[in-house]
Amino acid sequence: MKTKAIFYHAGCPVCVTAERSIVAALDAQRYDVEVVHLGERTARLGEAKRAGVVSVPALVLGGEVLHINHGADLSALG
Amino acid sequence: MKTKAIFYHAGCPVCVTAERSIVAALDAQRYDVEVVHLGERTARLGEAKRAGVVSVPALVLGGEVLHINHGADLSALG
Repeated sequence: MKTKAIFYHAGCPVCVTAERSIVAALDAQRYDVEVVHLGERTARLGEAKRAGVVSVPALVLGGEVLHINHGADLSALG
Repeated sequence: MKTKAIFYHAGCPVCVTAERSIVAALDAQRYDVEVVHLGERTARLGEAKRAGVVSVPALVLGGEVLHINHGADLSALG
């Protein structure tokens, strides 16, 4: 069974660069990766916050939150 | 040919957690991953700084620097 990985972003340049680098580098055989634009899908903000995400871009990998560089604070998104 | 990936850390708890998550998740078929402890291998500090690393843990992936969470500033290591 694959491990769930969620990449949260807000379409910012830092987010796009991080997505191109890290999401593309994950082992697709072992990870089921979902990319969520929190600026467009604000209904997912609560879930991201509960997971521990405080800024984007962030990758939640098997429950672990990895904040990758810094594009925007989650509080700026709603 | 595999892409070179270097994970720089300093043995800090944040570093260890990030290493377990992200280094393990990379596609080993496509990435040749090197793990460098900058606290022990200070000779590598210059190379890390030139790559754009300002804090650890950080992953340099095909030339792109991804600062993952924040354990320590590079300036604290020498």
